Amino acid sequence: MPGYMEIAEQLATLIDKRVLRSGDRIPSVRQATGSHHVNPGTILRAYRELETRGLIESRPRSGYYVRPTAPRSVPEAGRSIPPSRSTMVVTDELIVELVHSMSRPHVITFGLDILKPDLLPNEDINRAAARVARRLNPSRIISAMPPGDPVLRRLLAKRYIDYGCAIDSEDIVVTSGGREAVLVALRSVTSPGDTVAIESPNAWPLLGALAGLGLRVKEIPTHPQTGMDIAALEQAYQSTAIAACLVQPTFQSPLGSRMPDDNKRLLLKLSAHHRVPIIEDDRVSVLYLDGHRPRPLKAFDRAGLVLHCGSLAECISHAYKIGWIASGPYRAGVEKTKILLSLSASAGDQAIMAEYLAHQPVERNFRRLRLAVAARRDAMILAISEDFPAGCQMTYPTGGFSLWVEMPAGTNSLRLYEFALAKGVSIAPGPMCSARRSYLNCMRLNYGYSSVQQIRDGVRTLAELIPKASSQL
Amino acid sequence: MPGYMEIAEQLATLIDKRVLRSGDRIPSVRQATGSHHVNPGTILRAYRELETRGLIESRPRSGYYVRPTAPRSVPEAGRSIPPSRSTMVVTDELIVELVHSMSRPHVITFGLDILKPDLLPNEDINRAAARVARRLNPSRIISAMPPGDPVLRRLLAKRYIDYGCAIDSEDIVVTSGGREAVLVALRSVTSPGDTVAIESPNAWPLLGALAGLGLRVKEIPTHPQTGMDIAALEQAYQSTAIAACLVQPTFQSPLGSRMPDDNKRLLLKLSAHHRVPIIEDDRVSVLYLDGHRPRPLKAFDRAGLVLHCGSLAECISHAYKIGWIASGPYRAGVEKTKILLSLSASAGDQAIMAEYLAHQPVERNFRRLRLAVAARRDAMILAISEDFPAGCQMTYPTGGFSLWVEMPAGTNSLRLYEFALAKGVSIAPGPMCSARRSYLNCMRLNYGYSSVQQIRDGVRTLAELIPKASSQL
Repeated sequence: MPGYMEIAEQLATLIDKRVLRSGDRIPSVRQATGSHHVNPGTILRAYRELETRGLIESRPRSGYYVRPTAPRSVPEAGRSIPPSRSTMVVTDELIVELVHSMSRPHVITFGLDILKPDLLPNEDINRAAARVARRLNPSRIISAMPPGDPVLRRLLAKRYIDYGCAIDSEDIVVTSGGREAVLVALRSVTSPGDTVAIESPNAWPLLGALAGLGLRVKEIPTHPQTGMDIAALEQAYQSTAIAACLVQPTFQSPLGSRMPDDNKRLLLKLSAHHRVPIIEDDRVSVLYLDGHRPRPLKAFDRAGLVLHCGSLAECISHAYKIGWIASGPYRAGVEKTKILLSLSASAGDQAIMAEYLAHQPVERNFRRLRLAVAARRDAMILAISEDFPAGCQMTYPTGGFSLWVEMPAGTNSLRLYEFALAKGVSIAPGPMCSARRSYLNCMRLNYGYSSVQQIRDGVRTLAELIPKASSQL
Repeated sequence: MPGYMEIAEQLATLIDKRVLRSGDRIPSVRQATGSHHVNPGTILRAYRELETRGLIESRPRSGYYVRPTAPRSVPEAGRSIPPSRSTMVVTDELIVELVHSMSRPHVITFGLDILKPDLLPNEDINRAAARVARRLNPSRIISAMPPGDPVLRRLLAKRYIDYGCAIDSEDIVVTSGGREAVLVALRSVTSPGDTVAIESPNAWPLLGALAGLGLRVKEIPTHPQTGMDIAALEQAYQSTAIAACLVQPTFQSPLGSRMPDDNKRLLLKLSAHHRVPIIEDDRVSVLYLDGHRPRPLKAFDRAGLVLHCGSLAECISHAYKIGWIASGPYRAGVEKTKILLSLSASAGDQAIMAEYLAHQPVERNFRRLRLAVAARRDAMILAISEDFPAGCQMTYPTGGFSLWVEMPAGTNSLRLYEFALAKGVSIAPGPMCSARRSYLNCMRLNYGYSSVQQIRDGVRTLAELIPKASSQL
């Protein structure tokens, strides 16, 4: 066993035996270098190993800490068995009920797929909107027509520089939010009846969009930590005519998984070989809660296969909804599709977002948001590990705002959904996250929509209800 | 011949012989009552007859005038021959080119399907936006989720009172503009592969939307003055499985036709019998240029068949895009479709439009807009009747902002499009207005995007090019 691994194993054992508990600080690199008589590189490697396993986390300017709970990933058995044939997506009335529950008072919302608007920089947005209102004129409305406001597109292109991507403003087509971006991208490279490869489980809004376009889906097994299973995707490419691959490499919803860079390279290589365009749904990557921001698939894309879909609507403003697609060779088709779908995105929203990106403290607001969401994630993880009955397992997301819980076999999440809503807590039952309504004993929980106190209360409520939500009862 | 008809015929003859010419004032009702020794009701009936024929028009507080040109409707031969089978919509790169041409300087835009933004009440909109920017808060964002901002929905419902409709705010689902409204309505009552009955010719953005949804269309012959041919629609209902009827009863684009109330009743009766839902695309009915506002189909709808799609984006603000659907029994499906398509319309745009409708001079701005557009319509009609070569015929719209020109057989409007764009004028060639690319010798002209001087110049340019744009050359 190499030296760094020995050190890692020691610490892992201490954590396993709960000598080191969640939230405990572990020795700094300098301290450990002294204790183990090794060089700092070895310690760093050991700590990196423990981070990869999800046992510890680094906090900027503070040091390394044991995570609130040991990572308990959804085991192999919990993954979807890939359907032998592609399936039509069946959508659900539950989605409408969830959206409605949001505006009911006293409901703790774990079921929706958005951040609490209070966490967003509303005052800075209003400031930007007020400046725009003073000077928005008809010429700006004309220039906002597809492909979109040139000022906004240049600002968006500039933001790619930080992610290691060189994107020309000309390659960007502005949309009305991130979901429209994915919709336009899908429609521009597929026709109704085509089959799209997607992760399983998946975000229910995406499943709804796929159904609306008349697309079939091939659900690909997905790892809770590393995302879409590339080997399974390869099999799908070989056995089925796949028109596009829709993937969320960075903080997949609902798992919260994060695709390693090597897998990204492999995914691109395979897709290039099979000539399958990739739609990268990348709406929450600024919400990295540990370490630093992962690079998008687009940053590795030499062949021009990736339609990269971004959004300002998730993490900046729900009120003025702007998304975009950076698409390289698909640019003309994307623009045409956008024009046919809805002509232009709101010129006002475009101008307001351009004003915000240019003149407001964007990065500082993102940092604040990450701190707020990380605290909520930790609270939820801690509450679940303390309160949920034995046999429950969860993912430990390193970003985004949702996690996935697998409950004991026989638990009926649809029943739990009903029980919980009656007690003022909403969840997204597993079947909503699958085209085939699988995952009956699973649920997706959003930790970005509630206060820490609400999270504790909501998790406790769920913990009491889970044993009662058995399919047998 | 009844007395009123005699008087009408007299005047019609004078106009025909060009004794009375376009723009001439004809005797006031009081004067004519004296001259003809009849009661005022007879004169009013005569003038109404002449208005119906399109020979004269009334101008508020001014009197009756001969219209700039005699109405020359597209003759029977110019109507589409209904295709024997339904057809897939083929979309066109021209649409993208048209949108791009708009932002090029020195292009006179007759080809697009929007009003010039300068004609809209931009200052009042900016005032409303500034007020919203000062106080938009997260709770407003939540309440803007589907079905939409309750304040806005109540204001929209109130507006129906003026059209003789009683609509509950609860029946209204807010969308991101009028085109999304039609898209959501279509998707909520059809599935890909279904056939939708539509007018022919039609608006190219609608054809694009139909294609995007994977829908087939049955093109129904349409009269330049009275709109969709109800007898032909009945045949279609009998011969084909029609999933929905998409119709623009008020100022159909591109013809500018206006369906008589009796036809509306017949359309509803037939559709009820065949159980076909009707999607009423009613985006420009505030733009009635003569007389008063026609009642929507929805006002006659006792059976709850009509999904009424409205919009503030066409005639109030392109910048903050809001549309809606009033749908009665289809309400739940419409809302679900909207949620799946794009979750909510921009909460900011909704709040701004609510503020505008509640506190700005909405009706005064509409009146101004109608005067500005009517002047442009008259200028275009006059210019065409003076400049266009013999053999050209046009519709005479009583509202909206587009008219339809049929050129001599053998004229190639696609070639004309190219020639004209090279000279700085854009048109919408006939084939863009048809799923089957028919109407090669026709074009749609927008009179709501140019100044009166530009209209004169543009029409003169087209007049010179039409003879050169023959298919034979």
